[in-house]
Amino acid sequence: MTKKTFAVIGGGPVGSLLAISLARHGYKVRLYEGRPDSREISIYQGKSINIALSDRGWTSLEKIGISADAKRQSIPMYHRAIHGIDGELSSLPYGKEGDAIWSVSRGGINEKLLDIAEREPNITTHFEHWLLDIDFESATTTFKLADGSQKVVESDFVFGADGARSKVRRLAHDLPRFSYSQTYMPQCYIELNIPANPDGSHKLEKNALHIWPRKNFMLIALPNPDGTFTCTLFLDYSGETSFEALQERSSVEAFFKTNFADAMDNLENPVAEFMEKTAAPLFLVHVFPWSFNCKVGLIGDAAHAIVPFYGQGMNCGFEDCAELDSLITQYDHDWQRIFPAYENARKPNGDAIAELSKRNFVEMSDLSGDSKFQLQKKIEAKFSSQYPQLWTPLYSMVTFSPDVPYSEALRIGDEQNRLMQRIMALPGIEEDWDEQYVMDQLYGLAAETFGDGQ
Amino acid sequence: MTKKTFAVIGGGPVGSLLAISLARHGYKVRLYEGRPDSREISIYQGKSINIALSDRGWTSLEKIGISADAKRQSIPMYHRAIHGIDGELSSLPYGKEGDAIWSVSRGGINEKLLDIAEREPNITTHFEHWLLDIDFESATTTFKLADGSQKVVESDFVFGADGARSKVRRLAHDLPRFSYSQTYMPQCYIELNIPANPDGSHKLEKNALHIWPRKNFMLIALPNPDGTFTCTLFLDYSGETSFEALQERSSVEAFFKTNFADAMDNLENPVAEFMEKTAAPLFLVHVFPWSFNCKVGLIGDAAHAIVPFYGQGMNCGFEDCAELDSLITQYDHDWQRIFPAYENARKPNGDAIAELSKRNFVEMSDLSGDSKFQLQKKIEAKFSSQYPQLWTPLYSMVTFSPDVPYSEALRIGDEQNRLMQRIMALPGIEEDWDEQYVMDQLYGLAAETFGDGQ
Repeated sequence: MTKKTFAVIGGGPVGSLLAISLARHGYKVRLYEGRPDSREISIYQGKSINIALSDRGWTSLEKIGISADAKRQSIPMYHRAIHGIDGELSSLPYGKEGDAIWSVSRGGINEKLLDIAEREPNITTHFEHWLLDIDFESATTTFKLADGSQKVVESDFVFGADGARSKVRRLAHDLPRFSYSQTYMPQCYIELNIPANPDGSHKLEKNALHIWPRKNFMLIALPNPDGTFTCTLFLDYSGETSFEALQERSSVEAFFKTNFADAMDNLENPVAEFMEKTAAPLFLVHVFPWSFNCKVGLIGDAAHAIVPFYGQGMNCGFEDCAELDSLITQYDHDWQRIFPAYENARKPNGDAIAELSKRNFVEMSDLSGDSKFQLQKKIEAKFSSQYPQLWTPLYSMVTFSPDVPYSEALRIGDEQNRLMQRIMALPGIEEDWDEQYVMDQLYGLAAETFGDGQ
Repeated sequence: MTKKTFAVIGGGPVGSLLAISLARHGYKVRLYEGRPDSREISIYQGKSINIALSDRGWTSLEKIGISADAKRQSIPMYHRAIHGIDGELSSLPYGKEGDAIWSVSRGGINEKLLDIAEREPNITTHFEHWLLDIDFESATTTFKLADGSQKVVESDFVFGADGARSKVRRLAHDLPRFSYSQTYMPQCYIELNIPANPDGSHKLEKNALHIWPRKNFMLIALPNPDGTFTCTLFLDYSGETSFEALQERSSVEAFFKTNFADAMDNLENPVAEFMEKTAAPLFLVHVFPWSFNCKVGLIGDAAHAIVPFYGQGMNCGFEDCAELDSLITQYDHDWQRIFPAYENARKPNGDAIAELSKRNFVEMSDLSGDSKFQLQKKIEAKFSSQYPQLWTPLYSMVTFSPDVPYSEALRIGDEQNRLMQRIMALPGIEEDWDEQYVMDQLYGLAAETFGDGQ
């Protein structure tokens, strides 16, 4: 057959992985990226931007035939290291013994996937190509190049893998029956930095995700291989304690000293950084459909921009690619069937992880807070270890159970929570939580609800 | 003082009313409309487009000082005339004796408001001015004129009253922290027509809103003063019975004959019209904020496009104008306070009427269906007539109680529904509903919940 051609818009991790998957199915792929090639020109301004990758991400990479040797450059984080306001440190494991989420350099994994893509004979990469327009009937794309000239490209199909602020999605805005929402969270964020020790070692425990939970705001730190930590401060945009309210140097200093006393010694110029930087917004995007005329599709953040509180953004994008990869085989390259099957399969999961991620801000930022909630988690953990076939905690379903779709995890998690409300309403639960009768009651409820497996 | 200037974008009913309100507060107003002046060039192609106006609309007009003499050209509809599938006709009043919603010609009320606007010395009207761009810092607007030339206009403030597909709102899309959603309903619609009798009288009962409720779809008809009815067929876009499925002439004919037998004699070429016309989509728009830099605001459908199933779209837009009118006085022309107060006051009401309108499709289209639901309405009506201070039915709160904000109506309606679920769960309620003990039980619940007035 003549090779059908794809234009993939966006050379980030998801666009690169998609290109590889399509090329290995025999398609001719042109991969377009607006920015310069980060392997030639540094575009990260010396910053380590890291993200969490977990089982869904690794599994999806492997499904597409990419060995998980990127894991070797990543740092496993086995637990949350929780920094109390009094400086006290406590630890909360992410899952069972050995379960970890992985701190991955975004630039590193992106460049690795680009390297793999460029070794595919069916792929050409084109940097500094800014998408200007798409004809959604013919899949014709128009780009602006660095010299200001324009280039028109004919393809059989187009995929928008161009991220949370996707131009492909924006161009689709006026197509018939295009449902769309963008929702800003009350929080914004800035990135801060903890440098390495002079000997290159980490100033804080390396194999943990550090959290300074302060209920309405929080600081987190993820380790990098070079001994540094990339920190993110999440704080309301406006209100009593907020980016808007903290304008004076003295009040910013007081804010850090009061809330992050133990981090102050390690952070690099937090007050100056706070004063200089513009807080970045957090927003969610929902959109449907994810494909247009069976010619143009959306994938990754372009289809479902979420907030980072579950560490699932890139995992979900990689899962999109893996799903599509399977569907190409299943429907034998019939894109009239692949596009609808793809969006129907993935849309509910995109919606579910968006909802779960939004909810998780409260969970993360209140980790050392609400004692009733912490007790609930403790009872769940105990029950789950006694009856693992009846109960996998929500966090583990999302993070360590790639066979459970996000939408199922959300549904089961809500059921679990409903049952736990009944347990938490037992008189004297605060004292009795470790008694066998509590486990027995929960067993009765769980067996009735999840008896045939969850 | 030097008169501050406003550019009002959109010369529809809401834009015209807003212009009048601003002018009467002493502002200099330029009113811009993209289309030609309908008073000079027919833009309605001989069609009567009518809408329902009710107490909120009339009250808002009066608050701004416009006498409700438009009422004289409108047709009161006191009840729903329900056409069963077997041709049987039944009647369901909208409220108490004398309560009515009014069938109003959209073009007529628009032209009337434009006439009033042009009599204001502070207003100039500018037709065939298409908005191209806004500077949201300086409130500078750029228009394209009919001859293709461009015109730049400086104003102190801008209001976008430019409807469901607002250009002002679209231009605001990339401002920081702009939350936005557009959601398509499963239904689309086409307009049909029932002509007048040769003597100019109406072929169906004049003072009623006619409904052919068929559960998943419905036909409605509103009377016009010239003896015609404007009909709207609401039907799913795709699925078993849908615009997409009904492509063949024979199946369209069968569809009308099966479902609208008694209307077939009166409708003007329904099958041909159905085949020729493109079904129009129905969508909701949610957006926040409604103002930008205290310089540019949104109002009416531009701020809250809703679906037409509660007949409240224009009423809500007029209420926006009346609220703003009050706030100008309350805050003595301080727009740094008026804009935030306006959006905070109106946003919850826009959201509430959006939700209520969406829900009302089910209520309207299933009017002759679910008998349990009809029984619930009957019990509520009886209780409300016995204890009017404790219970106003939701429909009456929305339609006949302009002092109850939409958001309050929604909240109270949900409470009422919760109480009614308990009444409907009484054993034997189908037989006993007219017994005194049912009223007594409901009285106990309502007094407990709404004791201090709703």
